[in-house]
Amino acid sequence: MAHLLSTSCSLKPSTNIKPCSKPLNQCTAAYPTFVTLKTSGSPLKRLVSQGKRTQRHCTVYATAAPISQEAQTKPNSGFQNSTTEPSKQKRVMVIGGDGYCGWATALHLSNKNYEVAIVDNMVRRLFDHQLGLDSLTPISSIHTRIRRWKSLTGKTIELYIGDICDFEFLSETFNSFEPDAVVHFGEQRSAPYSMIDRSRAVFTQKNNVIGTLNVLFAIKEFREGCHLVKLGTMGEYGTPNIDIEEGYITITHNGRTDTLPYPKQASSFYHLSKVHDSTNIAFTCKAWGIGATDLNQGVVYGVKTDETEMHEELCNRFDYDGVFGTALNRFCVQAAVGHPLTVYGKGGQTRGYLDIRDTVQCVELAIANPAQPGEFRVFNQFTEQFSVNQLAALVTKAGRNLGLDVQTISVPNPRVEAEEHYYNAKHTKLIELGLKPHLLSDSLLDSVLNFSIKYKDRVDKKQIMPSVSWRKIGVKPKTVSA
Amino acid sequence: MAHLLSTSCSLKPSTNIKPCSKPLNQCTAAYPTFVTLKTSGSPLKRLVSQGKRTQRHCTVYATAAPISQEAQTKPNSGFQNSTTEPSKQKRVMVIGGDGYCGWATALHLSNKNYEVAIVDNMVRRLFDHQLGLDSLTPISSIHTRIRRWKSLTGKTIELYIGDICDFEFLSETFNSFEPDAVVHFGEQRSAPYSMIDRSRAVFTQKNNVIGTLNVLFAIKEFREGCHLVKLGTMGEYGTPNIDIEEGYITITHNGRTDTLPYPKQASSFYHLSKVHDSTNIAFTCKAWGIGATDLNQGVVYGVKTDETEMHEELCNRFDYDGVFGTALNRFCVQAAVGHPLTVYGKGGQTRGYLDIRDTVQCVELAIANPAQPGEFRVFNQFTEQFSVNQLAALVTKAGRNLGLDVQTISVPNPRVEAEEHYYNAKHTKLIELGLKPHLLSDSLLDSVLNFSIKYKDRVDKKQIMPSVSWRKIGVKPKTVSA
Repeated sequence: MAHLLSTSCSLKPSTNIKPCSKPLNQCTAAYPTFVTLKTSGSPLKRLVSQGKRTQRHCTVYATAAPISQEAQTKPNSGFQNSTTEPSKQKRVMVIGGDGYCGWATALHLSNKNYEVAIVDNMVRRLFDHQLGLDSLTPISSIHTRIRRWKSLTGKTIELYIGDICDFEFLSETFNSFEPDAVVHFGEQRSAPYSMIDRSRAVFTQKNNVIGTLNVLFAIKEFREGCHLVKLGTMGEYGTPNIDIEEGYITITHNGRTDTLPYPKQASSFYHLSKVHDSTNIAFTCKAWGIGATDLNQGVVYGVKTDETEMHEELCNRFDYDGVFGTALNRFCVQAAVGHPLTVYGKGGQTRGYLDIRDTVQCVELAIANPAQPGEFRVFNQFTEQFSVNQLAALVTKAGRNLGLDVQTISVPNPRVEAEEHYYNAKHTKLIELGLKPHLLSDSLLDSVLNFSIKYKDRVDKKQIMPSVSWRKIGVKPKTVSA
Repeated sequence: MAHLLSTSCSLKPSTNIKPCSKPLNQCTAAYPTFVTLKTSGSPLKRLVSQGKRTQRHCTVYATAAPISQEAQTKPNSGFQNSTTEPSKQKRVMVIGGDGYCGWATALHLSNKNYEVAIVDNMVRRLFDHQLGLDSLTPISSIHTRIRRWKSLTGKTIELYIGDICDFEFLSETFNSFEPDAVVHFGEQRSAPYSMIDRSRAVFTQKNNVIGTLNVLFAIKEFREGCHLVKLGTMGEYGTPNIDIEEGYITITHNGRTDTLPYPKQASSFYHLSKVHDSTNIAFTCKAWGIGATDLNQGVVYGVKTDETEMHEELCNRFDYDGVFGTALNRFCVQAAVGHPLTVYGKGGQTRGYLDIRDTVQCVELAIANPAQPGEFRVFNQFTEQFSVNQLAALVTKAGRNLGLDVQTISVPNPRVEAEEHYYNAKHTKLIELGLKPHLLSDSLLDSVLNFSIKYKDRVDKKQIMPSVSWRKIGVKPKTVSA
């Protein structure tokens, strides 16, 4: 991939190093090539290692330096909900735990007393560097984030830095952390990114499909019984002219009946990669007895959760640009800076949406109520449906209540999609498990629009307009930003 | 991939070489890194080249040495069917043209006066070396094959040796050959191979999905209007309890109706890769206006076609081993050598089958009647349905008529699949285009069983039993053969 030198992060060890790749108390000579940083309440300890193989990974088991005495004396202060606490501390690996949904989820699960490890290769931050983009909100490094979380709550989040497409690395994380559940956010998750050029299209499918295959093999080989919670997308279904069910549909045809996977009609190389994943996972559930939950998530909005609110160093990222920004977040930023809301085409495109506080709730519900061995379970993870025009109207009204001058313009649709269509997607299974939705009407101001206003000086207006065309994608590497 | 050093074949050029990568009459300095061998009626000419970039490919535009005077004086002798000759010589690129279906197809199209180029990286032959397998029939090198074809018919088949996962190589082939149609057989095509170990599973999906993505990008970028004829498999559908339609199904659900992609339930990493391909191709037809035909092929049997019969150096490969052999071919070899026919499990597994003579006919029909721009057309390419038990009974009867002692045994099913199930798959679209099927009852003796008897001394009985388990696949690289 021309745009990526490597998707694995490398950390060159210093000399005079000691062979060790496991946490200090498990250190053996069997895993000689990883770099390890070990959390403890004591001052930061660092262990670097070097074996016979090429140095490739930095495995960091959380880095905690003393920050405030107050936090250290109140390690479990007030953020657990005892009604949903697991009876035994389940060990949950959050792949992609430095990303938008992943970071919020990792903190939430840690706060709920799950033992949490984050696995991430930091490539999402690399994309920002390469494309000249930045989060609206200032975000700390993953190391700072985890240290701050430890100092505030006393809770440790282990950190494994590396690429799950590298099976040797992934094996180490499984054998070291021994997860009971894996939450897999670790994919390239932007449709426009996947449509920039051939290289990014290929990267997206390769990264997402191979990464997920590796996770499936790791569960089969090392952690039989480990529950896979995989993030899919509502975009896998496309916009059929019939109701969208949750993963399966019962079809009567020529006098016979069967319940089959719901037909998929994805509309970007990213969305297609998620369809491939779902198909692969379904097979391994049947063939190997893996229990998996596929969360077909809608468009996520908002930035704050109970946990990220605790300290500015825990703040989540918030993307508003034409590549990684989603419709509602982008509209709020546009309203805040006086840029017209950019409706793509006719604006009748209707999708499911949810607050990021519901993302973390849904993942926790899936973990607490796991799929059975051999079961491939699909939940549609969203709370409300809106068309793009409806979103624009809601933001306009909310913005004007704050005294903002909000205008809307239609821009040529860079995507290939129906702009007026039927859309009715079921989403009852997570409600049945106990999801209590945050509705947009209640969240728009405090969770999204006010954040946009607070950080409006950080907005780069050049990033707002669509820069990627579904039809014009070519084979030459492309630089999409100004 | 640990089992492959590289999927690209390399040919080290000698020194004193001239920069050229195009056929002699198009040679420019623009493509300095490929190795070219040019066919002509004159004695073998060789052109090798070296540029500033690393030497990676060997591009061979057919190599013809004089073989017989008779053949040279009758270059177009008697194998064209004038009723199906194209009015203008369409240029057809056959990717994977050295393989079982690909070779037969390339010869057939050349014989029908299409301008044919084969693109192949020879990896299928490498698999045999790595697994210790061999074709029942002795097969010549692709270079010898193409020279022999030229000497017999006067027809040139151009040859590009390289990996379509390498987009630079694929670009060169498109810009050099300028195809009107691409027939894409260039995938890892064995379900058991994809289930040997993690490395092969990942290789299969990566190779097949990325290769196909690259072909789609090449068509979009370089040959708009080029018709893609892609080989899929009936295995994409699995064994639903309702009739299998050709690619799409009309569903009425909660009072509304839509025609949607037929639900897929593939059962190996290979079959899954084909599902991924189909999903990707459908998207590019919609987004970019590519016209594509997806041939969901059944299990192919037989070895001879009109063209491969012309000379022993044109003989096609015939696989009977547990990895690449398909049920009927393997049964015939077992009957010929006195090995019991090995029925996996209960033997009620029912699939669509076709003679390789119908494979080449179907591909020609698809090319002669192309999909429209933007159309994603799916044909189910088989002629008859049989259960494994029915096949065993047919081979037993035919073998006994030849005086063979044919026994059948049930072996534990290495696959995860229904062993008794409903199966009724439509296959009318190719018939409507003019397919005249060769039925198994007429072909079994002369096209399969007699070949097996003729070459029975070449059979390696150790290769016959299943060596790959769907459930036991692990992460360590595995050597499956004796």
